[in-house]
Amino acid sequence: MSKVEVAILMGSKNDLPVMQEAANMLKDFGVSYEIKVLSAHRTPKETAEYAEKARDNGVKVFICGAGGSAALAGVVAAHTTVPVIGIPVDSTPLLGLDALLATAQMPPGVPVAAVAVGKMGGKNAGLLALRILALSDKALEKKLVKYREDQRKQILDTKL
Amino acid sequence: MSKVEVAILMGSKNDLPVMQEAANMLKDFGVSYEIKVLSAHRTPKETAEYAEKARDNGVKVFICGAGGSAALAGVVAAHTTVPVIGIPVDSTPLLGLDALLATAQMPPGVPVAAVAVGKMGGKNAGLLALRILALSDKALEKKLVKYREDQRKQILDTKL
Amino acid sequence: MSKVEVAILMGSKNDLPVMQEAANMLKDFGVSYEIKVLSAHRTPKETAEYAEKARDNGVKVFICGAGGSAALAGVVAAHTTVPVIGIPVDSTPLLGLDALLATAQMPPGVPVAAVAVGKMGGKNAGLLALRILALSDKALEKKLVKYREDQRKQILDTKL
Amino acid sequence: MSKVEVAILMGSKNDLPVMQEAANMLKDFGVSYEIKVLSAHRTPKETAEYAEKARDNGVKVFICGAGGSAALAGVVAAHTTVPVIGIPVDSTPLLGLDALLATAQMPPGVPVAAVAVGKMGGKNAGLLALRILALSDKALEKKLVKYREDQRKQILDTKL
Amino acid sequence: MSKVEVAILMGSKNDLPVMQEAANMLKDFGVSYEIKVLSAHRTPKETAEYAEKARDNGVKVFICGAGGSAALAGVVAAHTTVPVIGIPVDSTPLLGLDALLATAQMPPGVPVAAVAVGKMGGKNAGLLALRILALSDKALEKKLVKYREDQRKQILDTKL
Amino acid sequence: MSKVEVAILMGSKNDLPVMQEAANMLKDFGVSYEIKVLSAHRTPKETAEYAEKARDNGVKVFICGAGGSAALAGVVAAHTTVPVIGIPVDSTPLLGLDALLATAQMPPGVPVAAVAVGKMGGKNAGLLALRILALSDKALEKKLVKYREDQRKQILDTKL
Amino acid sequence: MSKVEVAILMGSKNDLPVMQEAANMLKDFGVSYEIKVLSAHRTPKETAEYAEKARDNGVKVFICGAGGSAALAGVVAAHTTVPVIGIPVDSTPLLGLDALLATAQMPPGVPVAAVAVGKMGGKNAGLLALRILALSDKALEKKLVKYREDQRKQILDTKL
Amino acid sequence: MSKVEVAILMGSKNDLPVMQEAANMLKDFGVSYEIKVLSAHRTPKETAEYAEKARDNGVKVFICGAGGSAALAGVVAAHTTVPVIGIPVDSTPLLGLDALLATAQMPPGVPVAAVAVGKMGGKNAGLLALRILALSDKALEKKLVKYREDQRKQILDTKL
Repeated sequence: MSKVEVAILMGSKNDLPVMQEAANMLKDFGVSYEIKVLSAHRTPKETAEYAEKARDNGVKVFICGAGGSAALAGVVAAHTTVPVIGIPVDSTPLLGLDALLATAQMPPGVPVAAVAVGKMGGKNAGLLALRILALSDKALEKKLVKYREDQRKQILDTKL
Repeated sequence: MSKVEVAILMGSKNDLPVMQEAANMLKDFGVSYEIKVLSAHRTPKETAEYAEKARDNGVKVFICGAGGSAALAGVVAAHTTVPVIGIPVDSTPLLGLDALLATAQMPPGVPVAAVAVGKMGGKNAGLLALRILALSDKALEKKLVKYREDQRKQILDTKL
Repeated sequence: MSKVEVAILMGSKNDLPVMQEAANMLKDFGVSYEIKVLSAHRTPKETAEYAEKARDNGVKVFICGAGGSAALAGVVAAHTTVPVIGIPVDSTPLLGLDALLATAQMPPGVPVAAVAVGKMGGKNAGLLALRILALSDKALEKKLVKYREDQRKQILDTKL
Repeated sequence: MSKVEVAILMGSKNDLPVMQEAANMLKDFGVSYEIKVLSAHRTPKETAEYAEKARDNGVKVFICGAGGSAALAGVVAAHTTVPVIGIPVDSTPLLGLDALLATAQMPPGVPVAAVAVGKMGGKNAGLLALRILALSDKALEKKLVKYREDQRKQILDTKL
Repeated sequence: MSKVEVAILMGSKNDLPVMQEAANMLKDFGVSYEIKVLSAHRTPKETAEYAEKARDNGVKVFICGAGGSAALAGVVAAHTTVPVIGIPVDSTPLLGLDALLATAQMPPGVPVAAVAVGKMGGKNAGLLALRILALSDKALEKKLVKYREDQRKQILDTKL
Repeated sequence: MSKVEVAILMGSKNDLPVMQEAANMLKDFGVSYEIKVLSAHRTPKETAEYAEKARDNGVKVFICGAGGSAALAGVVAAHTTVPVIGIPVDSTPLLGLDALLATAQMPPGVPVAAVAVGKMGGKNAGLLALRILALSDKALEKKLVKYREDQRKQILDTKL
Repeated sequence: MSKVEVAILMGSKNDLPVMQEAANMLKDFGVSYEIKVLSAHRTPKETAEYAEKARDNGVKVFICGAGGSAALAGVVAAHTTVPVIGIPVDSTPLLGLDALLATAQMPPGVPVAAVAVGKMGGKNAGLLALRILALSDKALEKKLVKYREDQRKQILDTKL
Repeated sequence: MSKVEVAILMGSKNDLPVMQEAANMLKDFGVSYEIKVLSAHRTPKETAEYAEKARDNGVKVFICGAGGSAALAGVVAAHTTVPVIGIPVDSTPLLGLDALLATAQMPPGVPVAAVAVGKMGGKNAGLLALRILALSDKALEKKLVKYREDQRKQILDTKL
């Protein structure tokens, strides 16, 4: 495991297009990350170990995406005290409603920060991680303010 | 861990009324079981260990119940090759629809047998375990036939 | 009816791509099966007879798939004491949510083991049947352990 | 089985309050009916036999109520050519949405006439049966016209 | 308005593919029908008049299809005592769940017989109408028995 | 029909607690209204006539509430060009989701303004009517500004 | 900001096809409008300012469309006393059900008039705005009557 | 505004029982917080101002709860770069599903961290805030480890 600030995990390689949105956001802001496939159900031990060692390796935020019963974010949250963001992936016939409920409805004691279903959530997971990191990083905070300002301008400049 | 044929696990003591339905069914048929609180998120290691040792301890079926994101059955299934039955518990404001989706929508590779939400599912989880055990237990199979016959009579004798 | 360990039934030929996932899984593990179209509503007698004779013909597990009101698994379960796995098929405009509820929400007394909607569920239905059969088949249990190990490696070897 | 025009069946005695609404409606209109508990899953043979003999016994309409996976109406429809009305009963934690989907989403070939969930549906099931019977019963048709007129007046006379 | 036994109404020409399934079923059985576009909301008076005169014109069953808030079947049922079958059409982004609830959840007093969403429901609406008509038409009843038998054979002859 | 600015209609007297919220809001602002029970299905003609004459009687806004398939607002909108607000009433086991979809998912050509399910929607239906009336009533517009200001203060003065 | 009667706002340029339906309707009736992209979340200040100044600029109705958590209509309604119509846009994997609930379920005090999801709602939003404007514009009211009459004829002239 | 690390906002005083769960969690860990009623719709300016000044006042995390269309968390997130946690409150007839979708389905650019519906989410919102704060607070991180250990013991010590 390399020294990174954000660990991006997905339950299946099929989730990559969604997770890439989060990764791109971090890259754009110059934040280091690692992106891996690890499954709550198919590699439970490796997932647990990865989560447990993350803090000591410098990881400050997890971004975990999965579809269906979407247990990955919760299982990672169970093995770390680092904040965990969960992206519900719309990879089953139920459109991601299953993954959204599984990600958000965590039992008391083990929190997961759920974002929107699919790519929209992927992008915001990246931004949420940046907001968390920016609490102790003035430069990053400035970039977030600028990003918001750029967004504002982009909206205002939209031609219909 | 005692030598039992069925291990009944629940994510929270609040799930007991639902899980007791499963236990009662097993007791009525004279099948040994152990009933415990173990959480996928709050005791991940103990849950994993319990699941891993179960087969060698004689456990032939797991019955796991949980509400909300309901990860318990899936996490147990990830650590054993024994069949795992999941009962979605209706313990959140979303009526158990969250738990049903989380229990049923398992990713390919790690199967969970989902039954109905709540007490109805509790009873059927017990019966499903009995059907599995009866595959190699003629006496139990006879009892199941008799149970079905009793059910039939009870319906036919119903006075309105 | 031939001597097989698993009977795979579907309510309509259109359900074949989903059911084939279950069949392929059994084939990969060298387990004998029969795959047939039988409908709870259009061939109720043949379905009942098939279910009743199954045990004596050596069937140890049923895998039944259907869409919409998806009664097949429940009707089969009503006519046998063998464990019945139900696959909700996403063949209506409601995405398989109808079939999932119909499969999972069985009344107390007649259990069905519901898996996920569609192909994902097809694969897991096969694996769930294998877990049940492996309770009395050491060789099969070993294959399941190996399958899990292969899955693990496949995940760990994934290149992004 | 007595000679009646409408057969009212329910999957469980617990469904009686809903089914009684249908029965009361028939009674108010002087139409003969029989009301029984018969289960698609717990008394499949008796249900099939009852449905098969109904036409020869004079039954012209079935009203079947059940909760959860609600297979009763569909199973009855599979064994008769008489019109079958299905009432989804709200007897599970999922509020009757499960029963509604199971009752309405019948596969092509075996029609069921679904009405509303619960008591509201019970009343309308009775009225729908009356509409069907009134096609060949002028006196009954007159009563339906009068009933509608009474309803109209009742609404118009409502004091707030 | 011509003399027909079944009146098929749809709220929009876009619903035709679904409604045609009902019409084809009637045609196959040699039952006369009329198929028209009439809207509960855009031609309320013509719809009311059509419904009111239908009985005297010989109409014995209505089949009404509509999407979204799907008021057509209910509005027709309010203006006739003839049985009304409602087909929920999946013509909005909500997949027909909106139309299903609007069709099935009728208030007490004005019954509608809801069938499945979309083409599946179209076919069954035709069959449900045939079942109703067959109550007073022995020849039609025989055709329904034969149809069922043909269905049975078709299922049993299915090659996979 | 009296000369009023707002006509409040409900499909059943049971909807009164919800509709009273709308009425109270109008009363508080000194706007005249009439509140009546009229049903899309049980008094279709009276409802149509009432809607048709409303404009000439001075009605400027309709507020219609109903549960279940909730056709009232749509039927009224079909018979007037006055704006129609629909309140989905939570009077069935499906919690008002049925009424919300039936109220909101109107076909193109006949608009209904849907507000929230139940009492919350009742209050806002009143306020929405007031906003419409205030377009040509400066005094009313001032009261709305004051109401908003009072709301603001009430929130800011809340003690926890 | 130009002097227009209707302000059409959307949260993202991607919502344009839906919003254009509303604009086209206004154009067909000769009503002036402005169409802009403004976001509740990305340009909160500009959105607030725009809403606040609208009344003085002559705006009599807002039409706001957004997908997902769809806050735009509510935020605009919070900054004006002019009636606000909200169009839920189906731009997320959840088919617009998210946007419908977010648009309709406004808290008491700040009303939004929700219409149907997607293009169907776009058209009706335009018509609802026209109904509101027609309260004080006889010529517009006449056009609405004619539009309704044209719709009626179009339905009645439909050839199948 | 006092100097606190966490700002807890709710849209209505009725949401207090849910929000108190978050507050209690912070209190137990000795983290300073302020708890206030501020509404996205009824006090939009005060809410915007509060959010804008928060960072300079030392606020590091927002916890916002609201029911129905639940815009508060999103509106706060639009006015700050501090991480915002949203708690969907089950205060409408739709059980909090409306609030969950409104909280989670945020558009790209403005992230909100959604937790579970109701009190369960309240508790986890507190814990999620603590995890974020613990990234730069070793003592707090230790307390979180101890909390997790206490939870573990509590589960393991549960007597049934």
